[in-house]
Amino acid sequence: MITAKARAVDGPDKAFRAAEIKRRDLDSHDVLIEIKYAGICHSDIHTAHGEWGPVNYPLVPGHEIAGIVTDVGAEVTKYKVGDRVGVGCMVDSCGECENCCKGEEQYCLKGNVPTYAGVDKYGEPTQGGYSTHIVVTEDFVVRIPDSIELDVAAPLLCAGITTYSPLNHWGAGPGKKVAVVGMGGLGHMAVKIAHAMGAEVTVLSQTLNKKEDGLQFGADNYYATNDPETFEKLAGTFDLIINTVSATIDINAYFSLLTLDGTLVNVGAPAEPLPVHVFSLIGHRRSFAGSMIGGIRETQEMLEFCAKHDIVPQIEVISADQIDEAYKRVLASDVKYRFVIDISTM
Amino acid sequence: MITAKARAVDGPDKAFRAAEIKRRDLDSHDVLIEIKYAGICHSDIHTAHGEWGPVNYPLVPGHEIAGIVTDVGAEVTKYKVGDRVGVGCMVDSCGECENCCKGEEQYCLKGNVPTYAGVDKYGEPTQGGYSTHIVVTEDFVVRIPDSIELDVAAPLLCAGITTYSPLNHWGAGPGKKVAVVGMGGLGHMAVKIAHAMGAEVTVLSQTLNKKEDGLQFGADNYYATNDPETFEKLAGTFDLIINTVSATIDINAYFSLLTLDGTLVNVGAPAEPLPVHVFSLIGHRRSFAGSMIGGIRETQEMLEFCAKHDIVPQIEVISADQIDEAYKRVLASDVKYRFVIDISTM
Repeated sequence: MITAKARAVDGPDKAFRAAEIKRRDLDSHDVLIEIKYAGICHSDIHTAHGEWGPVNYPLVPGHEIAGIVTDVGAEVTKYKVGDRVGVGCMVDSCGECENCCKGEEQYCLKGNVPTYAGVDKYGEPTQGGYSTHIVVTEDFVVRIPDSIELDVAAPLLCAGITTYSPLNHWGAGPGKKVAVVGMGGLGHMAVKIAHAMGAEVTVLSQTLNKKEDGLQFGADNYYATNDPETFEKLAGTFDLIINTVSATIDINAYFSLLTLDGTLVNVGAPAEPLPVHVFSLIGHRRSFAGSMIGGIRETQEMLEFCAKHDIVPQIEVISADQIDEAYKRVLASDVKYRFVIDISTM
Repeated sequence: MITAKARAVDGPDKAFRAAEIKRRDLDSHDVLIEIKYAGICHSDIHTAHGEWGPVNYPLVPGHEIAGIVTDVGAEVTKYKVGDRVGVGCMVDSCGECENCCKGEEQYCLKGNVPTYAGVDKYGEPTQGGYSTHIVVTEDFVVRIPDSIELDVAAPLLCAGITTYSPLNHWGAGPGKKVAVVGMGGLGHMAVKIAHAMGAEVTVLSQTLNKKEDGLQFGADNYYATNDPETFEKLAGTFDLIINTVSATIDINAYFSLLTLDGTLVNVGAPAEPLPVHVFSLIGHRRSFAGSMIGGIRETQEMLEFCAKHDIVPQIEVISADQIDEAYKRVLASDVKYRFVIDISTM
């Protein structure tokens, strides 16, 4: 067994504490990664606070992981010691179902193994990236292109792929009008990626506070949703809306912004059901869809895309002692735009 | 002005009465149609009862119209006297907007002119097909193929196109598993059309009462939704679900029946919003969509398709005096599967 230093939380209301956790010895296809940076995703907070169902504490969150390969199992072919690699929201899947065979492991019919708060094939609870080391089967490791620094690479593994995948799947590109709802960790990545794909990008944020940033990230337009005129002015405009806001919003008002055959994709899931007025879908053959991260192949593709287009998230690097404070600031929307833990401070 | 006999209703709780209505003199592109048959659609009932907003009574419903051309305007090129024609849910649109130019007049950005309970370009209220004659601009008239009798042709103009269009748009065909929710006027058409398109068709009806009919119409499978095992057994099965039920159903239970990238399309709109659990969409990149009738070109295509595949609705022909009774029976789900008024009894 390999011992790793980590930051763990012992209950919904507890602070993070230093911990030691065990990582399994390398199986033949396993890769040992020395983690350099781990992003803080809103999902980490939901899970740590027990808001998404019961959690087996102690919990080590973190599914935006960037590091260096320091050892490999006997039959590993994809990676070697010294490689710069990443791990995202899942560390395994059945590999055999229809969806896995399509390369959509995130939708594994038997359920993928989440990077933390899951149970791996050995029956052990999974622990995430707020930790010095992790062991992952090579098929769930991606290569970080040389041009992307590891600190900014980390958030690509969740915030990047979560927005790239629906933009890619629903065809954001030249001639398409894409709106991004919310300008947080996910939203700011969606703006950069959609812009690089060639779409006309509009940000729909509560206020105009981050307008300058949004335009700098590549948005062509920026509107405040607390201004009712926004919804009148933009009625029937967008081919695609990526909703990055998990809080409950008036979803029907956003449907009205879609053009014929337009799709609104939620990448976050509010805890409460959203009341959908079906008339607003029927009126222009609109769709309301959901999307969850992306497959491993697509995650690699996203990294290459970001390297090619010089896309990286805006981050604020923190030390391991600042996780609790960072959580509070995320909940207060006081982050531009992603916290990343420098694991060397662990 | 042309005088037509009709059946009109004077208020939400009133019975139908014999009436005389005026049809406009033929404009250069107008066609005068002697109506032979008019189907009774659930929308007629909603509108007659004032359930879809205020109505300008007296109202003559009916948007499943089949008849014979008896006169044409000076510049009409598409039809001549004696042609067998149909009129569906709309009789005009702006003809200039993006959606009209795509041939999707039903989604006209200025609003199409509904066949009844609308206002035409002359500022006059439109009156529907429970009537001996109607005047319609030739672009909103379709040709009924010779092999389709006029009585069974009538319901194709709404029930047929309303189900054909989403099946066509979302690619029902060989290798696709399609479920049809509800086995009423729309549902039974969806089964026949999806089967003819080559899809594997499953009916999801409250009970197994109409199972024999369903299988005869071309369904491969038939399940009762009042049996909870149905939802367990069919989880993750369907590429496409056409929901023909306007009443509020547990829509999330139906989402769970969709496969990866599957779409549930509502062709009816419940008056109340549906509570959508977004997790059930995100989990398998599912979509919830709406669809409304079809464009004129697609309606003509649907008629040719039905002629080619010998598809007609199951109908019960009634006289003009039986409309009130027929409404009651539709509301009691006591119709197999569409009432059609023999206009010669008017």
